[in-house]
Amino acid sequence: MLGKTQWVIPEGFIPAAGPFADDRALRSHEAACILNPNRETAHIQLRIFFSDRDPAGPFQISIEPERTMHLRFDELDDPESIPRETDYASVFESDVPVIVQHTRLDARLGSLSLLSTMAYGEDGK
Amino acid sequence: MLGKTQWVIPEGFIPAAGPFADDRALRSHEAACILNPNRETAHIQLRIFFSDRDPAGPFQISIEPERTMHLRFDELDDPESIPRETDYASVFESDVPVIVQHTRLDARLGSLSLLSTMAYGEDGK
Amino acid sequence: MLGKTQWVIPEGFIPAAGPFADDRALRSHEAACILNPNRETAHIQLRIFFSDRDPAGPFQISIEPERTMHLRFDELDDPESIPRETDYASVFESDVPVIVQHTRLDARLGSLSLLSTMAYGEDGK
Amino acid sequence: MLGKTQWVIPEGFIPAAGPFADDRALRSHEAACILNPNRETAHIQLRIFFSDRDPAGPFQISIEPERTMHLRFDELDDPESIPRETDYASVFESDVPVIVQHTRLDARLGSLSLLSTMAYGEDGK
Repeated sequence: MLGKTQWVIPEGFIPAAGPFADDRALRSHEAACILNPNRETAHIQLRIFFSDRDPAGPFQISIEPERTMHLRFDELDDPESIPRETDYASVFESDVPVIVQHTRLDARLGSLSLLSTMAYGEDGK
Repeated sequence: MLGKTQWVIPEGFIPAAGPFADDRALRSHEAACILNPNRETAHIQLRIFFSDRDPAGPFQISIEPERTMHLRFDELDDPESIPRETDYASVFESDVPVIVQHTRLDARLGSLSLLSTMAYGEDGK
Repeated sequence: MLGKTQWVIPEGFIPAAGPFADDRALRSHEAACILNPNRETAHIQLRIFFSDRDPAGPFQISIEPERTMHLRFDELDDPESIPRETDYASVFESDVPVIVQHTRLDARLGSLSLLSTMAYGEDGK
Repeated sequence: MLGKTQWVIPEGFIPAAGPFADDRALRSHEAACILNPNRETAHIQLRIFFSDRDPAGPFQISIEPERTMHLRFDELDDPESIPRETDYASVFESDVPVIVQHTRLDARLGSLSLLSTMAYGEDGK
């Protein structure tokens, strides 16, 4: 099956929402875009790591077969929310292979700035 | 031969065209830049995955030996078009090894913002 | 354990601080975001390479178990500082596996521009 | 030795120079940032691929031991120059392992926009 079962994004930081705070598409945010290209549902456990406290989670995520999910970190709320303007990192563990890409939109100053990278993938042992 | 036969871009999103909608180079778009560095023509099948419907495609792409193709997602139209402002992901399967890089230009607010990453590559089994 | 023990960022360049020089978050900077997802402290040696002189370092970095560190290159000062507007590259060697992502914020002209990529990882022999 | 001997950047495009055309740092450009972390000089052959003509090169590049080179694509001129506003891709073949990262600065509209990614690396056979 295509993909890997563990993915890591070391660079997490949700900037201040900025002047478009009322617009879901344009407010500052981070996303983990996940593709489940396989024929089984993916059950993913997400843990969030910080610089100065124990990890949060696991957050439980399910992705149907042959579907993509653009997961917004600024909208996580169970078991807790991720504060803005705080350094974090994330680790995804899936029961079937998936592929994860990281994206940030920074709108703090009223123009859009983007970054993106494939996450770091590894197969669990 | 240099490259891999399967490539995945989980983070697909074509922003609204923005104020330069009449300028092909400056309107918001996404591209998959593909290099076929080998001496055989590459025949590629592209499938597009969504969050809430079955995948689209396959789109058929051919790249001559030792040529690059900067494929615009906003210009795909056979068997269908990809709507703007919609989450998607893409999977490329080639009969010979190639290399794929993902790029977006977001011009929604009238300035340019770019993101790019190598896609996730794997050899088919 | 998740991660790799050697990481490389070839593209180092800290732009001029720009008009927000007094604001730590908004002045131009580069960061290496490092996650230590494992249960042992990571001891990392960082060396900085230049185009025209011998490498600087090693800089000594420790990261507690299950913690992330967003290391600012513009704040390194022991054994030396990295000058702005100078090409450099960095190599991280850790005693336990970690994951490293590279990010730059360029604020030279008063708007924000971002780039990011996973660093290149390899296991030491 | 750390690194790989073949590197590919599929997404090449040097935008129009823009309003800062006289400023080397701020005019639109692309760079391949290469680190030679090893104790031998790296001799690299660079070939440039296009969409509609045979490849250019090889361009010959040497990098001293433990040095980095931020190679500007807009300054290549032997055996030929790379035109702006033209799709291309690049392949690096080195006699010793190196690491390559791709960066673009797009200043067409007078603000800065950046993209970067690690290139695709593979060991030659």
